[in-house]
Amino acid sequence: MKAALIQQSYQGSKEATIKHSLELIDQTDAQLIVLPELHQGPYFCQNEDIANFDLAKDFETDVEFWRWVSEEKQKVLVASLFEQRAPGLYHNTAVIFDHGKIAGKYRKMHIPDDPGFYEKFYFTPGDLGFEPVETSVGRLGVLVCWDQWYPEAARIMALKGAQILIYPTAIGWFDQDNDEEKSRQLDAWITIQRAHAIANALPLLSVNRVGFELDSSGCLAGIRFWGHSFACGPQGEFLAKAKEEEEVVEALIDFERIKEVRDTWPFLRDRRIDAYDCLLKRYCEK
Amino acid sequence: MKAALIQQSYQGSKEATIKHSLELIDQTDAQLIVLPELHQGPYFCQNEDIANFDLAKDFETDVEFWRWVSEEKQKVLVASLFEQRAPGLYHNTAVIFDHGKIAGKYRKMHIPDDPGFYEKFYFTPGDLGFEPVETSVGRLGVLVCWDQWYPEAARIMALKGAQILIYPTAIGWFDQDNDEEKSRQLDAWITIQRAHAIANALPLLSVNRVGFELDSSGCLAGIRFWGHSFACGPQGEFLAKAKEEEEVVEALIDFERIKEVRDTWPFLRDRRIDAYDCLLKRYCEK
Repeated sequence: MKAALIQQSYQGSKEATIKHSLELIDQTDAQLIVLPELHQGPYFCQNEDIANFDLAKDFETDVEFWRWVSEEKQKVLVASLFEQRAPGLYHNTAVIFDHGKIAGKYRKMHIPDDPGFYEKFYFTPGDLGFEPVETSVGRLGVLVCWDQWYPEAARIMALKGAQILIYPTAIGWFDQDNDEEKSRQLDAWITIQRAHAIANALPLLSVNRVGFELDSSGCLAGIRFWGHSFACGPQGEFLAKAKEEEEVVEALIDFERIKEVRDTWPFLRDRRIDAYDCLLKRYCEK
Repeated sequence: MKAALIQQSYQGSKEATIKHSLELIDQTDAQLIVLPELHQGPYFCQNEDIANFDLAKDFETDVEFWRWVSEEKQKVLVASLFEQRAPGLYHNTAVIFDHGKIAGKYRKMHIPDDPGFYEKFYFTPGDLGFEPVETSVGRLGVLVCWDQWYPEAARIMALKGAQILIYPTAIGWFDQDNDEEKSRQLDAWITIQRAHAIANALPLLSVNRVGFELDSSGCLAGIRFWGHSFACGPQGEFLAKAKEEEEVVEALIDFERIKEVRDTWPFLRDRRIDAYDCLLKRYCEK
């Protein structure tokens, strides 16, 4: 199965950005297309602005558009959209399309909130749980960005039968951080995702934004999205890596490897489910 | 806090190996000493031999010996021993000593079993759970080898207040594997442990055996323990790394960094404990 990771930048308007995405998608003959988090527009969570909720109002139209793209181009496609579910109730939602059909959706479960990433203002935490989506190219375990940092999310997708982990994401540097801190952050982000692949013996795709985006409120200095999208196999081995520019990264995914690796290192066999109660607690002080 | 990782090889007898360990310990002024898994003897789990249970019979004497070492050398010390708890009931047990006192112990919870690592024959799975051990240098989250592959174990130690994750381990290559497979295995092992540090914002020490050990039954070709012991900080950043020879690796651990990193990337805040039930199941098919 060939997958394409569309590592792209915001093009100044929704129209221009979508047009650009379509051009990038046309560069690949991959069966599975994954776009970055909230790829239709700017990363608007750099500040808390009520006006930004308008970006979610066309969710139904957006879904119909990307459904049409998946049909027109005959692809499985993972889009990351801002969903207005009801007035005043919004989600960060990945929608998975399969040759013109809506195969499923995932509402981001873990919502971050830290300076420049004010997502708790915008996104209600997902209520669909961690459910793989059945498609013609396999059962996709789609998660979004901050979910990346949670081994729990990847594990549950694996226990529910996912054949691949997929993370649309929007993460970057602040220019004011020093090079050592930037390097540690990028390396931590790559490392923990590779570890989800390893722990569960699943291939993994991580697709990031790229480019510099100003904070429209002028309060913060903006985010330099670091790219470095990558694909890895079930031992965490790199299959393909992007740098910090726009790029369409292709990777060949071999689902046969999942069983081979799991049979060699049978981690799922030995989980101590009798001793994991603490995982369902916030903290376990005595 | 200075920690020392004693990456050593088996010296042909218990006496020679212990003598060698003491010489290596004398090379460092670290406050915390960590030895590899089952460091007193050979890695006897390469075959299933009832005679090997004799290696556990002196557990009480072994504990008293390492208690004395920790007192004599005024150290906190993590030893990894073969415990006879009752006739026919054995554990792979880490004992933590603090300046002549037994601070606590941990019985390996996840027991592997694959060709050359027949541990399920020897070791009853631990029944003490994942409990950090309070010592004069901090609360130590001691786990053992195969536990390395389980994000659940590291997470529970963190939720119970561990300030550092520590893995005595015995892992290596089969010479008959090709270089690509060897490289993937080593890299997976390093990566997943660094990820436990990252997910929990905790420093981590992993201490491996080194050297080639024959399978005494002659059935298998032996294991080349790959060394590569390392220490990393709470962003997974390397603090110290060993190669494939014997080495005493020292690392300075800064517990203040835990709070700094967690305050910047507050992963513990956003865990979806309402949606993790599946983690307590073996598998979650529909």
